[in-house]
Amino acid sequence: MRRGTNLPAVGGFNQTVILDLIRRSTEGVSRVEIADTTGLSQQTISNVARRLLDDGLITEAGKHIQGPGKPRMMLELRARSRFAVGVHLDPAIMTYVVIDLRGAIVAHSQVRTPEAGRPAEVIETMAASVEAILAASGVDRSLVIGVGIASPGPIDATRGIVVDPPLLEGWKDVPLRDALATATGMPVLLEKDVNAAAVAEIWLAGTQSENFAFFYLGTGIGIGLALGGEVLRGATGNAGEGGTLVVPGAGLPASRRSEKLGHLATPGYLVDQAVEAGLLEPRSAGHPSAESGFSDLVALADGGNELAAGILDRAAGLIGASLVTVVNLLDVDRVVFGGPFWEQVSARFLPIIAAVVNGSPDRVTRHPVELGGSGIGDDVAAVGAACLVLDTALSPRPSALLIGN
Amino acid sequence: MRRGTNLPAVGGFNQTVILDLIRRSTEGVSRVEIADTTGLSQQTISNVARRLLDDGLITEAGKHIQGPGKPRMMLELRARSRFAVGVHLDPAIMTYVVIDLRGAIVAHSQVRTPEAGRPAEVIETMAASVEAILAASGVDRSLVIGVGIASPGPIDATRGIVVDPPLLEGWKDVPLRDALATATGMPVLLEKDVNAAAVAEIWLAGTQSENFAFFYLGTGIGIGLALGGEVLRGATGNAGEGGTLVVPGAGLPASRRSEKLGHLATPGYLVDQAVEAGLLEPRSAGHPSAESGFSDLVALADGGNELAAGILDRAAGLIGASLVTVVNLLDVDRVVFGGPFWEQVSARFLPIIAAVVNGSPDRVTRHPVELGGSGIGDDVAAVGAACLVLDTALSPRPSALLIGN
Repeated sequence: MRRGTNLPAVGGFNQTVILDLIRRSTEGVSRVEIADTTGLSQQTISNVARRLLDDGLITEAGKHIQGPGKPRMMLELRARSRFAVGVHLDPAIMTYVVIDLRGAIVAHSQVRTPEAGRPAEVIETMAASVEAILAASGVDRSLVIGVGIASPGPIDATRGIVVDPPLLEGWKDVPLRDALATATGMPVLLEKDVNAAAVAEIWLAGTQSENFAFFYLGTGIGIGLALGGEVLRGATGNAGEGGTLVVPGAGLPASRRSEKLGHLATPGYLVDQAVEAGLLEPRSAGHPSAESGFSDLVALADGGNELAAGILDRAAGLIGASLVTVVNLLDVDRVVFGGPFWEQVSARFLPIIAAVVNGSPDRVTRHPVELGGSGIGDDVAAVGAACLVLDTALSPRPSALLIGN
Repeated sequence: MRRGTNLPAVGGFNQTVILDLIRRSTEGVSRVEIADTTGLSQQTISNVARRLLDDGLITEAGKHIQGPGKPRMMLELRARSRFAVGVHLDPAIMTYVVIDLRGAIVAHSQVRTPEAGRPAEVIETMAASVEAILAASGVDRSLVIGVGIASPGPIDATRGIVVDPPLLEGWKDVPLRDALATATGMPVLLEKDVNAAAVAEIWLAGTQSENFAFFYLGTGIGIGLALGGEVLRGATGNAGEGGTLVVPGAGLPASRRSEKLGHLATPGYLVDQAVEAGLLEPRSAGHPSAESGFSDLVALADGGNELAAGILDRAAGLIGASLVTVVNLLDVDRVVFGGPFWEQVSARFLPIIAAVVNGSPDRVTRHPVELGGSGIGDDVAAVGAACLVLDTALSPRPSALLIGN
């Protein structure tokens, strides 16, 4: 017996099972095969298939002839029948994607996030950028299901509010979901950034591990978690907060501000360290992001500057130590790395983190943890937010999460 | 679409849904109601119900008359039709329970764990104690489905092996599951202790939160996790390791051996602290457990000894600080406390932990975390292990986890 099964949602579960079967089959799948696999009644399957055909999400294609009986019509996904927009709001960079029903990226863009402290300006930019990427993609606007936003937490998932992310100054209880819905005239969904990234990894990563942590290196640090192929969202959609993990004291600089990973391994802190060490010029006052300073620091380290390399390598070691805690607590066998600041340090950080995690005497299990970058790259959170729009719209009760205008 | 749905198991899922419906209904449920609620075909429901009736797990009882149509036979659970034994192997204390199909405790016993370093002796004691509690309970042995063992981790869940728990000296790759199956002639299942405890909490706690951490104070410390009413087991069944959480440095004694919760808040360490402070006599050499010393320490503190109270209260503070990390990472809204050493410190620890967790500036979400002891008490891990036997046996593929003789 499974406790916690939400029985009134079983109808929705049936539909997701059927759609998932159709999506996964490269050559389509027949109603009889669906019945054999799922145990659902022909009536239920016919109803669901009828709805999906009427909506144009699937098509009856070809005939599958098997033995002497009646040939079977195959149900196939129509990948270009619907689209979703994904927006990733990072304090430094905003990313936009358009994906099709199978999750393929149709269009992509990035812009610098407007100055902090002005949510209204950010929302205005966001709405304009959504229109711009739709225009550039050539996608028929009537086929766009909605917009998913990946935002730093904490969020209020139920009400679609960005509560007060520490790295988005001036943002306090901003009703981002409804504001963007009003501005674009489209349904909008809000998800925490690192959990959106984990969703993308599950949608698009194919046969990889179902039990993984997603280490997200943005302006802040997040650690999204998936077990059994499901993203762990927690009670209010705010799981994945990795910044308050306490790191071991050994090896920390004497000037440490705290023992928290969310200070000691963020790009902003590392740039501060480099400025203190005389490696970089002090940043221009009032600039909310660290991305140019961070790129300079990485370039110094890659060019052979040992002081710069030391600052970065120590951060990698602290990340590894924190991941030992997470791996022990949740018994994941894979860690995926991504986020807007990850790519440039990937080659340097991965071997250090791997050595710490797999060499740690504190590890509880013996099986090695596989570590690697997300195949989706910098777009991962935006893609995940768009995947969630598809997930939600394809279930029979989109009203629970999507707000129309 | 749900990623990670294991399609070949959907038949099993259907059966668990039907059984769960029957179990939860106090007055039984009709086949038509099952069809309406689940969308499953009459054929599937009839097949499942037939199998359950044949096995005697449910009964057709009474008739539900609704309007002018044909009266409906109600399907009801037969609580006393099957039983399961639960064993909890703690380094200090072994607990045994017999539960019925609804999870009610029929019999209970506790014995001190034999000296460490002798797995064979422990297994012999375990087998004898299983026979003894069955005899004492008066339950017909042919109605006992099997035995569940809750063991300290790490375990190899697939092979039923206790790998090398740090607090069970001399235990290395012990095939506990198969050894007890051979000794008792019954199918046996092995689960990590803290995850078994979380299973019990879900089975028996009724309408409580579906998103919780189970803080387990045994000879070691575990933190089991459940989200959406499902226990998080991780890739190999070893999730729940809380001992390697790093605690903040502030307030630690200068003599600290490490910064890990698994040292600094365990009963054994606290007894050591009390001995160093001259509060307790040095423990007799070679004794693996700390339980008598710990009870003495608690009695001193409760009697007004400030030094003893200080040792305990500091541990409670560290537990609270660690739980802030866990609450942030997984967004749970409840922490349940239990384990063999919990009861005696519950009144002292709970207010301290609650103040730290709910007063922490590091908390990401605003909603208060509810904290309280498990209603199941010291038996919780043993009860959970027995619940798992029922779970597994009632699913159509028990061979995956249960090993017969």
